[in-house]
Amino acid sequence: MKIKYPFPNARVYKKTSYKSQGMLFENGLNITNEFYRINNKAIIYKKPTPIQVVRVDFPARSKAKIIEAYYRTPSTTDYNGIYKGKYIDYEAKETSRKSFAFKHIFPHQIEHLKKVSEQGGIAFVLIYYKVVDEVYLIDIEVFYDLYQAGLAGGRKSIPVEKASEVGVLVKLGYTPPIDYLDAVDQYYFK
Amino acid sequence: MKIKYPFPNARVYKKTSYKSQGMLFENGLNITNEFYRINNKAIIYKKPTPIQVVRVDFPARSKAKIIEAYYRTPSTTDYNGIYKGKYIDYEAKETSRKSFAFKHIFPHQIEHLKKVSEQGGIAFVLIYYKVVDEVYLIDIEVFYDLYQAGLAGGRKSIPVEKASEVGVLVKLGYTPPIDYLDAVDQYYFK
Repeated sequence: MKIKYPFPNARVYKKTSYKSQGMLFENGLNITNEFYRINNKAIIYKKPTPIQVVRVDFPARSKAKIIEAYYRTPSTTDYNGIYKGKYIDYEAKETSRKSFAFKHIFPHQIEHLKKVSEQGGIAFVLIYYKVVDEVYLIDIEVFYDLYQAGLAGGRKSIPVEKASEVGVLVKLGYTPPIDYLDAVDQYYFK
Repeated sequence: MKIKYPFPNARVYKKTSYKSQGMLFENGLNITNEFYRINNKAIIYKKPTPIQVVRVDFPARSKAKIIEAYYRTPSTTDYNGIYKGKYIDYEAKETSRKSFAFKHIFPHQIEHLKKVSEQGGIAFVLIYYKVVDEVYLIDIEVFYDLYQAGLAGGRKSIPVEKASEVGVLVKLGYTPPIDYLDAVDQYYFK
């Protein structure tokens, strides 16, 4: 059974289903970022999921226990940090379809990434197409144009073929599992 | 009555005490960052407080309700983002004493800022000395040296006089309330 959370990043799986899901995309990214940090390659962290705390209980002799809270919509994206002295910011998405639908990313997250790009930062979307087991990095300017075209009546999703055409394929492996900074080098530092 | 939270940033005040507390430092910083964003001067956000969710309830026809969760120690600092194309990262602290004690900042946060600085980012600590109503920006390299001296048997805090000597005084006002990017300009872009 999969529990329905208000947005994908807050989704959790029962322990018994871990194996059948393979390595979670988010988990792979976290391990990758830890690898980058340990090797002083980049300092990139996932931001905590924003939670609105309503009630807190203080049991004697133990730490504060939150007893009522709700998931909030994130203001920005999931990941940011520093790479080669530059600010880097991205959103990571996975889809079980052959085309990534724009409705699965918040419009204000797209706007946020666009602004980061305009201020000279590195900003992109990472999309994991589970059916083909491929991850693509798509620069926000490119992503933004496709998104705008969708709003104007065009295609409201990015098929994996399109991603391979306009994005950069991310090498998947073991150390690190999702080497997206290699794709960043190809696109932003070539 | 002030509720005791596990770390300062999670601290909340009862509504009735807002006035006597004056504008909260964190609140002032959030308004300042919003001002910077609106004016396309910088994109800096406060990270959400990390919370470990243990149990979630799903009442019929309503959104997920977290019924058991705990505050976690933050991995990094409170604020980061992009300014003039550069990565910026800082921790904001307030003290009601005339000297800021190092025990009020996590050692791993200091290490994090040090690493950011080493990778070419702008990294500092903002300290609000409530008794004198002054905010100082102290670059992490300077802060780190004082901290190390404290570990080696020296002073384990930074008095406001020292802050005014080694740091940059931050202009306090209305729009924005805490104009720390002016201090950043003075220190990092002069």
